[in-house]
Amino acid sequence: MHLSEEGDGADRLRLALFDAGLLLPTGVRGVYGRAGAFEDVVVAFDRLVDRLNKPLRTDVLRFPPMFPRAEYTCMSHVHNFPDLMGSVHSFTGGEREHRELVRKLQDGEDWTTELSPTEVMLLPATCYPLYPTARGDLPAGGRMVDLQSWVFRHEPSDDPTRLQAFRMHELVCLGTPEQALAHRDHWIEAGLELLRSLDLPVEAVVANDPFFGRGGRLSKATQREQALKYELVVPVTSAGKPTAVASSNLHLDAFSKTFEIRTDGGEPAHTSCVGFGLERVAMALFATHGLRPAAWPTAVRTRLDLD
Amino acid sequence: MHLSEEGDGADRLRLALFDAGLLLPTGVRGVYGRAGAFEDVVVAFDRLVDRLNKPLRTDVLRFPPMFPRAEYTCMSHVHNFPDLMGSVHSFTGGEREHRELVRKLQDGEDWTTELSPTEVMLLPATCYPLYPTARGDLPAGGRMVDLQSWVFRHEPSDDPTRLQAFRMHELVCLGTPEQALAHRDHWIEAGLELLRSLDLPVEAVVANDPFFGRGGRLSKATQREQALKYELVVPVTSAGKPTAVASSNLHLDAFSKTFEIRTDGGEPAHTSCVGFGLERVAMALFATHGLRPAAWPTAVRTRLDLD
Repeated sequence: MHLSEEGDGADRLRLALFDAGLLLPTGVRGVYGRAGAFEDVVVAFDRLVDRLNKPLRTDVLRFPPMFPRAEYTCMSHVHNFPDLMGSVHSFTGGEREHRELVRKLQDGEDWTTELSPTEVMLLPATCYPLYPTARGDLPAGGRMVDLQSWVFRHEPSDDPTRLQAFRMHELVCLGTPEQALAHRDHWIEAGLELLRSLDLPVEAVVANDPFFGRGGRLSKATQREQALKYELVVPVTSAGKPTAVASSNLHLDAFSKTFEIRTDGGEPAHTSCVGFGLERVAMALFATHGLRPAAWPTAVRTRLDLD
Repeated sequence: MHLSEEGDGADRLRLALFDAGLLLPTGVRGVYGRAGAFEDVVVAFDRLVDRLNKPLRTDVLRFPPMFPRAEYTCMSHVHNFPDLMGSVHSFTGGEREHRELVRKLQDGEDWTTELSPTEVMLLPATCYPLYPTARGDLPAGGRMVDLQSWVFRHEPSDDPTRLQAFRMHELVCLGTPEQALAHRDHWIEAGLELLRSLDLPVEAVVANDPFFGRGGRLSKATQREQALKYELVVPVTSAGKPTAVASSNLHLDAFSKTFEIRTDGGEPAHTSCVGFGLERVAMALFATHGLRPAAWPTAVRTRLDLD
């Protein structure tokens, strides 16, 4: 694939991935099936992140793609990114209400008026369900947690790097301000090194932290000044506007205040995380090295253990 | 763990899994975090199923935990199991509606009245998103597809084997009536063999196919007569009422009629599937061999490649 400034690189990449049978359209923008050859790359990179994390003696936690509504509403997501949320609703009525639901469906009316909100929301970020489970005092030295999950963001788009459903592999540090900052900084370098080992032309740039949006406590300008968020960017759909395939974020005490997470000294903890967007990394590899993994540079195949 | 007929085995297993740190409560029944030691077992069994499928030259497809609402409403799930569905809603209003949403949230009112249905529903079964993508003529010899995904079923329960969110690994056959039947029958035996190789006391029993429910075309009695669905059951929470950890189902032409899937001869295809409930298999292993995988029989550990 050639990346150029001409035409719409996002359209070209999406159609190339469909044509190569790597992604399957479903009729909904940003919701695609992954073919085996695409998934193999996702799994291979995921495994690499696992291997980096193992020696750090992290807790491994895997959450389903949803978490309690009661925790979601304590977070600022509903204030800052309501348009991205996924609220899960179901049917709790009786026979009569069900007949009405089916009638509405058959008559082309909005049948979802018969539904009620369930106890869960889709995950807007992989690390969200961790914080409510981490209430209380941390061990001395803090805590590292390895998480991977499906994330939902309601932003229908034809840009294949802007999926509605995708997986994030995160490594979260909960600890003192110094520990959280050191983790964030460590992963800027470690992330660059990891992605460069796959021959990806990656750079680190300062960005806005999505955890503090329009209703958040910190303005975008303040965030940039404090450099809370770094993104690791690679040209995927455009040489001029590279795509964030990972980010390393310092949350300060935003999560630990809400969920009363304290250091072993009883102070409000700080948290930070690095997150790799697994589908975005896979797309960066396809865009950089071509649509046939069998033809990728040997060093890249070896690093990914694809042989 | 000892299984007995006394007391509530489901409560005992849930609390034992929490106490051992294998599952993490979140405050919502049936929505739990998986610790690394639990997840290792899920991944190990998942890999075993992968290995069985590879020689069958299947297409591998991985779908996100959601699929198009437009396809969902073509299926009988909305008629048969409305109470299990997960409909995804989001916020599409402007600033004013958002202020109203936030006000309702702060005042303890139902803020979800401000949301609208999105284009997607959560997956009620791993194979559902396959059929709409399989429209048209099958190759001679039919087609085998390997799928694994998160499934949502809204049935809040304290029984840990009845999760709201869990993973299914399925192998689907699309082909002639003979091919579909042979696939279904093959997997009763192959499934028994696989689970017995893990020292699980498994049996095959005839059951009702969830694809034909109260509004479906086939009564439960007819299904039993035709023996469309077999479940592989293992005692997990009760010695007397074993739990289905896998099932092997013949759908006849239920899906292929809806989605116009034809054999290479142009006839309506038949489909069948085997599905392994990954969390249920893991729980069967914990219930049978104990809560510490390090202490499991060597043959089981070796078979799962846990060493």
